[in-house]
Amino acid sequence: MQTFRVELGPASHPVHVGTGILDSLGGLAREAKITSNRVVVITDSTVERHYAARATDALKKARFSPDLVVVPAGEASKSLSVLETLYDRMTAAEIERGGAVFALGGGVVGDLAGFAAATYLRGIAVVQVPTTLVAQVDSSLGGKTGINHPRAKNLIGAFYQPRAIIADVDTLRTLPDREFREGLAEVIKYGAIMDAPMVADLERDLGRILKRDGAILEAMVARSLRHKASVVVADERDGGLRKTLNFGHTVGHALEASAGYGRYLHGEAVAIGMTVAARLSERFAGLSADEGARLVRLIAQAGLPTEMPPKAVTPEFTAALRLDKKRAENALEFVLLEKLGRSLTKRLEFDQVLAALSD
Amino acid sequence: MQTFRVELGPASHPVHVGTGILDSLGGLAREAKITSNRVVVITDSTVERHYAARATDALKKARFSPDLVVVPAGEASKSLSVLETLYDRMTAAEIERGGAVFALGGGVVGDLAGFAAATYLRGIAVVQVPTTLVAQVDSSLGGKTGINHPRAKNLIGAFYQPRAIIADVDTLRTLPDREFREGLAEVIKYGAIMDAPMVADLERDLGRILKRDGAILEAMVARSLRHKASVVVADERDGGLRKTLNFGHTVGHALEASAGYGRYLHGEAVAIGMTVAARLSERFAGLSADEGARLVRLIAQAGLPTEMPPKAVTPEFTAALRLDKKRAENALEFVLLEKLGRSLTKRLEFDQVLAALSD
Repeated sequence: MQTFRVELGPASHPVHVGTGILDSLGGLAREAKITSNRVVVITDSTVERHYAARATDALKKARFSPDLVVVPAGEASKSLSVLETLYDRMTAAEIERGGAVFALGGGVVGDLAGFAAATYLRGIAVVQVPTTLVAQVDSSLGGKTGINHPRAKNLIGAFYQPRAIIADVDTLRTLPDREFREGLAEVIKYGAIMDAPMVADLERDLGRILKRDGAILEAMVARSLRHKASVVVADERDGGLRKTLNFGHTVGHALEASAGYGRYLHGEAVAIGMTVAARLSERFAGLSADEGARLVRLIAQAGLPTEMPPKAVTPEFTAALRLDKKRAENALEFVLLEKLGRSLTKRLEFDQVLAALSD
Repeated sequence: MQTFRVELGPASHPVHVGTGILDSLGGLAREAKITSNRVVVITDSTVERHYAARATDALKKARFSPDLVVVPAGEASKSLSVLETLYDRMTAAEIERGGAVFALGGGVVGDLAGFAAATYLRGIAVVQVPTTLVAQVDSSLGGKTGINHPRAKNLIGAFYQPRAIIADVDTLRTLPDREFREGLAEVIKYGAIMDAPMVADLERDLGRILKRDGAILEAMVARSLRHKASVVVADERDGGLRKTLNFGHTVGHALEASAGYGRYLHGEAVAIGMTVAARLSERFAGLSADEGARLVRLIAQAGLPTEMPPKAVTPEFTAALRLDKKRAENALEFVLLEKLGRSLTKRLEFDQVLAALSD
């Protein structure tokens, strides 16, 4: 098991990454000073089948009395009505200030359960127990919690740091292949923007990664979370540095929005977005053609898409791109690579971006 | 106008107390670095009649484009369904990260609008513009926001500091007499627990206070908020010191809960609770009988109740007392006075408290 701390003043917390550590959930939660025995485990209908019993058993071993709350799998659970159900269940379970929420699942469960914890009794502890690769390497760390509004994703939410993150890479064994590969997009992103040796290691280890070798996954997840932590510590609330984590996301988000949510998984859209960003980096940030090609090859070898789909540059796509949060008049703030492992942000004219898309 | 800052690190903010400063709302908001022009004013149906036009006009003078959202007056508006309406209105008004919510009203509006701001886009600025005495001397400062759950008051909420507090004591002129007097209970409380000269000043000035003299109210409100700020700065999240603000509240809350919410205003129940606490202070904390009598006399002269109502010690009352958050086995953590202006907390046996009640 690898353990490190995310240093955020009073919101500092430990991160544990290991194989089989779901069975140590209770002890690790006690170490994180969860004092009340009444706690709630929030999970979804998919994860429940595989891991709910193990999680609650592990909590009982440490004298917790966990209530299990299962929400339907899928993005639709990030709603006010499901949130209301959580409040009802938490009050019925008489969760007190010293109690805790365990978010057992992927990004949807983490966002939803994290927000419920952030707003119950003005904030009780949440322990993130991510079970998807995206959640393990990205969304469980950083304190972004929230639900969707009919008019915008994540419109309702809070910055609220977890009391601990406990990532058991063994839980990735039951993850469908497509969702596993989607998580690799975010892993590759860390290498691209801040850790060139990581790119080389991924190239070397990709076979074992795709076989879900426990030791190699533990190292990869821990390395990813350390990178994310270093950025979050420097910039907890999206001021500047944290924006570099959006490498590949500007085009990725526009593609998701215009293709209709659901056609691409988030990581797949980001993979295409990174490919576009690599091309833009070669033109406007000095990335060598060799390194650009290496990055695109790694993305492809991870089984992720690297090409803009035919006719993707629709009016809806360009409208979505114009709506990007990082926009400014007719320009877009883009995260680009000077070389592998080093990023910068640069304002690009809208037309420059469109030109690169149609190549 | 009196201005001071509440020093809470990155959540530090100014407090302005004055006569007629509602007309300076826009300028003061610009000083507090509200950058986007799109803002929303949340108020209730009672306050709207008196002050909504003045508030929005003042904002327009400073080039803001305010949307006005009016919620029904009363505690029932602290609900998830009203909150949902606020999110809908805020998205329709295209409020962005740099925008703000102005909470124009009493405690209900402040709690509700503060929570909406805390959870919209993971937190946008809220400017508290309290128009009741309770809100001006107490609830607008300290960052407690939230709504009610059918099973518990304020169950859903967040600690979220305002960007600024702008208290115009002129707005107290339209406050019904009973609500004005309820606010005086909290004012007297500050004197009792931390400022003996304030007790003397209140004794001297009570006539002018009850006539709502602007200059004297400005001084009284500013002094109260400075006291609350000093406690909140020392203890933002209810760790220890902040509990001294609960003087009179232990019995007060039990009385409110058991008499049926609505029979007593909160401040009236606190007034009775302070009388009981004064008696307990004489027995267990060394408060002199003279000072105890002075405190009770001031409460009575402010037009507030000082006697436990006949047959108030019902099974419901004792049950509510036992449920107090500061309980421990058969004892209650009580805030008592050693003398006027100096408080301590002391664990009292349940029976000792009951004995004092039946005297």
